[in-house]
Amino acid sequence: MIPELGKQFYKLGWVSGTGGGISIRRGKDVYIAPSGVQKERIKSAEIYIFDLESEQINEQASPAEAFAKKPSECTPLFFAAYRLRSAGAVIHSHSLSAVFATLITPFAEASEWVCGKMEMVKGIKGHTYHDNLVVPIIPNTPRECELTESLTEAIQKYPRSYAVLVRGHGVYVWGDTWQQAKGHAECYDYLFGATIKAHKLGVSLKW
Amino acid sequence: MIPELGKQFYKLGWVSGTGGGISIRRGKDVYIAPSGVQKERIKSAEIYIFDLESEQINEQASPAEAFAKKPSECTPLFFAAYRLRSAGAVIHSHSLSAVFATLITPFAEASEWVCGKMEMVKGIKGHTYHDNLVVPIIPNTPRECELTESLTEAIQKYPRSYAVLVRGHGVYVWGDTWQQAKGHAECYDYLFGATIKAHKLGVSLKW
Amino acid sequence: MIPELGKQFYKLGWVSGTGGGISIRRGKDVYIAPSGVQKERIKSAEIYIFDLESEQINEQASPAEAFAKKPSECTPLFFAAYRLRSAGAVIHSHSLSAVFATLITPFAEASEWVCGKMEMVKGIKGHTYHDNLVVPIIPNTPRECELTESLTEAIQKYPRSYAVLVRGHGVYVWGDTWQQAKGHAECYDYLFGATIKAHKLGVSLKW
Amino acid sequence: MIPELGKQFYKLGWVSGTGGGISIRRGKDVYIAPSGVQKERIKSAEIYIFDLESEQINEQASPAEAFAKKPSECTPLFFAAYRLRSAGAVIHSHSLSAVFATLITPFAEASEWVCGKMEMVKGIKGHTYHDNLVVPIIPNTPRECELTESLTEAIQKYPRSYAVLVRGHGVYVWGDTWQQAKGHAECYDYLFGATIKAHKLGVSLKW
Repeated sequence: MIPELGKQFYKLGWVSGTGGGISIRRGKDVYIAPSGVQKERIKSAEIYIFDLESEQINEQASPAEAFAKKPSECTPLFFAAYRLRSAGAVIHSHSLSAVFATLITPFAEASEWVCGKMEMVKGIKGHTYHDNLVVPIIPNTPRECELTESLTEAIQKYPRSYAVLVRGHGVYVWGDTWQQAKGHAECYDYLFGATIKAHKLGVSLKW
Repeated sequence: MIPELGKQFYKLGWVSGTGGGISIRRGKDVYIAPSGVQKERIKSAEIYIFDLESEQINEQASPAEAFAKKPSECTPLFFAAYRLRSAGAVIHSHSLSAVFATLITPFAEASEWVCGKMEMVKGIKGHTYHDNLVVPIIPNTPRECELTESLTEAIQKYPRSYAVLVRGHGVYVWGDTWQQAKGHAECYDYLFGATIKAHKLGVSLKW
Repeated sequence: MIPELGKQFYKLGWVSGTGGGISIRRGKDVYIAPSGVQKERIKSAEIYIFDLESEQINEQASPAEAFAKKPSECTPLFFAAYRLRSAGAVIHSHSLSAVFATLITPFAEASEWVCGKMEMVKGIKGHTYHDNLVVPIIPNTPRECELTESLTEAIQKYPRSYAVLVRGHGVYVWGDTWQQAKGHAECYDYLFGATIKAHKLGVSLKW
Repeated sequence: MIPELGKQFYKLGWVSGTGGGISIRRGKDVYIAPSGVQKERIKSAEIYIFDLESEQINEQASPAEAFAKKPSECTPLFFAAYRLRSAGAVIHSHSLSAVFATLITPFAEASEWVCGKMEMVKGIKGHTYHDNLVVPIIPNTPRECELTESLTEAIQKYPRSYAVLVRGHGVYVWGDTWQQAKGHAECYDYLFGATIKAHKLGVSLKW
């Protein structure tokens, strides 16, 4: 699935310039793509398999061809969602909608993106039409792995959220299965775009 | 046709995040996709067949594989168009153009979206270039099936319209055949987008 | 070529909702698609062949299957470009960029769209980087065939232009070959879009 | 690779209307597409092979079919990047994001586009998250080959940049390999788009 989703997300503008990423879990096997590759051209043979508990590469199961590269820099961030939320898949998108959702929100060390009054809010598990959907925004860091601590805190502080935004960077989205993670990612991206449009038009999208 | 149109509408941004839907009628057989599935990955074997008159699933004709899921939540809304307008197909889109067409229109319990001065108005059956195209806007409800009553009223009150907008949600569009429903959906979506652009530029698109 | 270009132009948003069209000339044979069909689904067997001089359907050469429909309403407009400019192909696009290029230009019975300072101006035959590209804008009419007279006048009055814009409707673009017509259509569309963006940003694109 | 990348870049809007181009180097062989062709329809048999040192066509290795046309007008510009930076590939894009990145920057004979506070800055070799990414902007000229001198100067003056913008025209981007050149082109295009959006929203993207 990862190569196929890579192509689809590339067309959506989520993983251009080798940015972004996708990880899927099957039982205790966690599939993670290599670092710095063109996400629309990943081959199955390049994908690493990590063990869920040890968070180490399963060297026997991972294809030899892949070992020339490093696993994605997002690896510890993917594991935060697996560990804290029993996620079945995690998507990391650099979509400009996600990035500008963080930029139209007034800056503060700890801040939130909020959206309501939209049917698509129901696309996020556990939310009804009358809810305001809330996603925490954490500051970006020079290296991706340095985000792990603040991402972990945000996940713990916002137990209803299936996403964490990173200012000027993008978003991490997860779900119980890859289908739900993809559905969540599409709904969040749609709503990020909606709040930017609404901001330009002076329309409020909060209850 | 439904799986093929699902792929096409996904590319247009009408059915992302498992939202939106398509239904086609052939004689007394009404084809409806299951609820909560990825619309660009529907398989023929998953599609339900309903009976037009009883509005019940035809259990013999519907493929067994599909029964694990529920039919689309839009089912009673699709039937409103089949019953009141003898529609041949109904398309439900979550397009951001449709949603923002409802948001740039000043709020009121009962309100309308109006567009003229555009050639594409002629793409809607029964309209000429000098007509203002009018689409009723109804308020959204927590559950999709709760829209049935207000959608039915709107269809009856606007006999020239082939669409009903739902605030913050999307649009229902129909036609005598699936080709006409698709043509209508494309024309309406184009014109929704045009009124948003015109709104930003301070240009009036009404006669 | 017409079915293939139909698919390509559909993806570009030029021929949605059965609007727009394409015609190609090979010697004295003029190929024209039927009226009111989905432009991304045209089949070769549906295309009419007209005679360049008589401007009548060549009934022997046109496939029988096509006769159930009418040829495109644009037919007399396509012939204006064939007759007055010896065009090898004509493209009619409903692109929102073309439409808004007419709407940001202050209204007048006879008006013009003007664009300079852009490399892509060189993509239109006979133009250099220091030229302002000028396209006449004619008012729209209730029926497409009623445009013939004003389109003919505009073509004659603007001998350097390979396009005529129609207010609130779209654009007719031609070239000596289908390749040039397509190149012209892409350059004009790009530049229409650029003038709209520039208008929003308060940037002037005229020498 | 050139035909495949041509199709991909066409979908991204970088090479419409026969504009833009791609060149790849393999050792001392430099592959360059012909001038004025549809970039999404290039065939391998049409591509010229130049010698890196003599900067002349390798007539024996270049396919005969190609000789009916001229090599791309960008040829001397591609060679500037090969000569001064040992580039492995050069991409020339007419993307509207690149063009408007030059137009929102106040005009001056010598000017710069600057962008920071964005994760994607790290996608350009030699840059960290805390860097401002700087790209020189040179004025456009009536003929493409006349850009060679100012492009050469800009490359020499900005040794950290992997791109040069041309006002009202587009951008030249390169990398050590075609994969890196494509990654750079996608990151720059994403960031050009981001600065335009930020400009509209009144958000600053500089450290």
